[in-house]
Order: sequence, then C-alpha cells, then structure tokens
Amino acid sequence: MSEKQTRIGFIGLGIMGKPMALNLQRAGYPLVVYNRTPGKTGELVEGGAEEAEDPKAAAEKSDVVIAIVTDTPDVEQVLFAENGVAAGAREGTVFIDMSTISPVATRDFAARLAKKGVHYLDAPVSGGDIGAVNGTLTIMVGGESKSVEQARPIFEVMGGRVTHVGPVGSGQTVKACNQTLCAVHMMAACEALTLAAAAGLNLETVLEVVTGGAANSWALEHLGPKIVKGDLSPGFMVKLIQKDLDIVTRAAAEANLPMPGAALAVQNFRAVQAAGGGELGTQAMITVYEKLAGRRVRQAGE
Amino acid sequence: MSEKQTRIGFIGLGIMGKPMALNLQRAGYPLVVYNRTPGKTGELVEGGAEEAEDPKAAAEKSDVVIAIVTDTPDVEQVLFAENGVAAGAREGTVFIDMSTISPVATRDFAARLAKKGVHYLDAPVSGGDIGAVNGTLTIMVGGESKSVEQARPIFEVMGGRVTHVGPVGSGQTVKACNQTLCAVHMMAACEALTLAAAAGLNLETVLEVVTGGAANSWALEHLGPKIVKGDLSPGFMVKLIQKDLDIVTRAAAEANLPMPGAALAVQNFRAVQAAGGGELGTQAMITVYEKLAGRRVRQAGE
Repeated sequence: MSEKQTRIGFIGLGIMGKPMALNLQRAGYPLVVYNRTPGKTGELVEGGAEEAEDPKAAAEKSDVVIAIVTDTPDVEQVLFAENGVAAGAREGTVFIDMSTISPVATRDFAARLAKKGVHYLDAPVSGGDIGAVNGTLTIMVGGESKSVEQARPIFEVMGGRVTHVGPVGSGQTVKACNQTLCAVHMMAACEALTLAAAAGLNLETVLEVVTGGAANSWALEHLGPKIVKGDLSPGFMVKLIQKDLDIVTRAAAEANLPMPGAALAVQNFRAVQAAGGGELGTQAMITVYEKLAGRRVRQAGE
Repeated sequence: MSEKQTRIGFIGLGIMGKPMALNLQRAGYPLVVYNRTPGKTGELVEGGAEEAEDPKAAAEKSDVVIAIVTDTPDVEQVLFAENGVAAGAREGTVFIDMSTISPVATRDFAARLAKKGVHYLDAPVSGGDIGAVNGTLTIMVGGESKSVEQARPIFEVMGGRVTHVGPVGSGQTVKACNQTLCAVHMMAACEALTLAAAAGLNLETVLEVVTGGAANSWALEHLGPKIVKGDLSPGFMVKLIQKDLDIVTRAAAEANLPMPGAALAVQNFRAVQAAGGGELGTQAMITVYEKLAGRRVRQAGE
C-alpha cells in the first residue's frame, strides 16, 4: 500500500484547517472531512473528499485522523464526545492534534487513547494562514518516534519545517514557548516605540536603526512598521494569543514556574480586549501604551 | 584642506574607544589622544598620535573632539571640569559624544556648549568591541544636519551603519530604545527556555524551532545557545546594561512613560548583580529564573 492510499480523516476546516486539507488533497491523499459548523466542506467534497457525519465516522473510515480546532475543550469534544474520534478509532489509528492546546491536557488525552491502542501526536503549527495556504508551516511534533516517522510524509505536505521535539505533549510546550516569545517581544516593541515617540523621533528611522542589530526581533521587524502606520489589522488576533497565553499560564502554574514577563504581556493584551480590540492584531498592544502614557505613538491610522 | 587633515581629539581609550581611535589613525586622521587612566595611549602614540595632558589640551589642538567614556557624570567631567573640553574648544569645534548617556543631560550639555559656538553630536554605538575593532559599529547620531554631514566621513571609518536620527539627544534616545529591546528580549528568552526546561525538553531542539519563525529575536538566536551551554561570559555585561537601563528609566520618568516590561527586566538584572554577577553577560539573567523556579535550565556549565 503506497503512502498516498493512507486515508486521512480531517476535522476542523477553519482558516488554518481548510487550506491544510486542500494541500493534502492536492498531494493525492484520500480525505474524509468533518467540520462542526456546516458549509465548510464544499470545496474539499468537490475535489473528491468524503464528508463524515461526525468525528467518529471520520475515524472509522481513516488510518490517520488530523484535528485542528480552537482550544482544549474543542479537542476533548472531538475525541471523547459520544460520536467522537475515540469511539471510531481502531488499534493502530494515528491521531494528530494540530490545534494549539494545553500540554497537560494533551498528555491526558494521549494516555486515554493509548488504552485503545491509538497513537497520539501533538503537532501545533506556526506560520499563520499564509503558511497554511503555501504549505510552509513550522510544525513542532511531540510523540513516539515511530508514529512521527509514519506521519512525516503527511506533515511535509503541510509544513516547511517539521521537527520532532520530544514525547507527547512536547509539541504543545514548544508552541507555548513560541507564543511566550511573541507576546513578550511585542511588549518590548511597544515600550521602545513609545519611548521614541515621546521624544518626537521619526519612528520609521528608529525602526531602521534598531532592527539592524542586537535589538532586533521578528515582531519588531514585521509588526513595528504596522504600529507606526497605525495598521492594527490581524495577522494574529489578540483573542487568540490570549488563548495561547492562558495555556502558557496554566502550564507554568502546573510546573511551579514564575513567568512575570509573560504575565505582564497577558495583562496588556487583556486591556486591549477590555477596550473591544480582541479581533485586532497583536500589535494593537500599542493602544494600551498610548493610553498609559497619554500620548500618540502611531503616526497614522484611526 | 582635505578631510584627512581634520585633527581629531580622542578621549577615552577603553575597550571600545581604543580600537575606534586606531581605525581613525589607520584611515589617516591625525589624532590627539587622552585617557583618564594612564598607560592606554602607547599604541596610538607609536602610530603617530600626540598625547594630550587633559581634555582641554586635546580640544585646543583639534577640530573635532570625540569622547567615549562610561556614564553621564564622566561626560560632564570631560566637558566641564576645569581642564575640560569646554575650556579648550573654539567656536566651530565639533564635539561628538559616543558614550551611552542620558538624552536629557545630553541636551543640557549641548546647550551649554552652544553658548561657546561649539557644535554637539550625540552618537552612541552598538555592535560591541568586535564592531569597534572591525569598524562595523551601528552609529545613531543626533544633532544638526550640517555638523552630522561634516562628521560623516569620520563616522564611516568607525561604523558600518551611520544614521542621523534627529536633533541633539536623539541618538541617545534611540540607544535607550535599543537597550530596552535587548533587555526585554532577554527576559522573553529566559522565560521561554525555563518553560521548556521544566518540561524536560532538549533546549537545542527548542531553539532550532522557535528561532525559525515569528518568535525569533537576535537575543534568542545569539545568546539562547550560550544559556543552553551554560556560557555566561560577556558579550555585554550585566552592570553595563543596568547602567543603560537606568538611563531608560530616567528618560521614561522625565517623559511620564510607564515602561513595566523594561522595569521588570531591570529587577531581574538587579538580582543577577545582587548575586555578584555584574560582570557576567546579560544572558546570566537565566540564573534568576533558575532560582525563582528552583530548577536548572542550563544544560552544561558551572
């Protein structure tokens, strides 16, 4: 049986999941698709995918089941609801969770599935919707080596960088580290730009200088110019990084780790949400500093 | 008179100043050198530099006077002590402060010199001793355009990127922004690596993944591996970034800006200093997180 006969159940056809599933379909994998909200399966079904009535049915008809949904309770529902994946999976089925959820819950879910002989990989992604469309996502995979290698051809259709980072749960931990970095880097960018704005400097010039050396970050280089232009459109939404930082906060609590910088970033994003900005991009943290300092940092925009 | 006949007084022959002065000498500029602590001028004098007995004498014999010393009071001393630059400079002399000091004090010093017709440029650098040796420093220059352009050939001997960022004091403000970013990025790196270490992950693998995308920073990419290896040697010393963050703190207070992230980084670096680590590199912030979390993050080292 060639790899391409591996039947893939694909659950969650949102802004990330749909283009990922389309890439698998284009690569020749037969798909069984399911989405909780109806009306998202059309393009995939036209391309030859079978539509499942629930996650259980998707699992029954597949060798590998991929889920990419919003949060920990959503994954739990996909797996363990009455018509969930656990009810349909067989011994040897590989379940791959590509959502960003709790590493602690992940280890629990994996242990419960292991009793049925179902293998669990946690494989959260970064790279956004553009990475999903282009098949260039960074995929950080936790799980047993044998299952990771079995799934690698599938991952490589969706991602440009696929790294096995450790046992089950490790992918989620690395994603939590990733989001911590993004959040705290945004805080750094906001504070530096506010200091520069208060001195009346041209912020484009400031960015040109500080991105050129040891002060640079991806956030500063890519989102700093958006702040200066007053473009607060997402990229990555405040409400989603808050969800991810809640995972960080709980993982840190579980491990008894003080993470004061991350905690401060959480508070700043919460203030953006409090003002109704949950669907703005993470660079909207600048609006908090504008309020705190009582001065404008953005040089254009509303 | 060719540019190269511009006589340069050079004050402060420390780890940064000496290689910068040597580059100017090699480029053909006649130098008059002064260092507060004796015994630093030998190599420059052998190369043809004249040694001045005090900053006043250096200024009397020069068209342009460069100072690169430690802190705000040192620059004040160089300028306004009895035998300081102000006592020796003439109308039209250009004074260039390449130290990292307060932007507020800088504007005051510039105003006092302006009464004598002396032009002031603040031109702090980043790029470290390696940048100083190789002539590849980033130089952020504040001051009047005419003086900046007059000094540009001199800057270009010492730096790879020379940017006029605004009026006098602006160079120091951009440097303060730069150091804010470096400090907060270090905090982000420490928290992310501590979270990963608590989960028992291989930190080299984690760094490989998170430096590949939107979570990357220069600090993470260049100092993260040193943390993992337990190499806390400087780079840039904790006591020096604390000095620079004190400038940030005062500039923020002057402008009424809350900078909670920077403040937290200050506290973390202070804890390193409290433990006797002031001469370690900034990545020694990891030792604070190791204490807070009661666990080892470094995978080697003492």
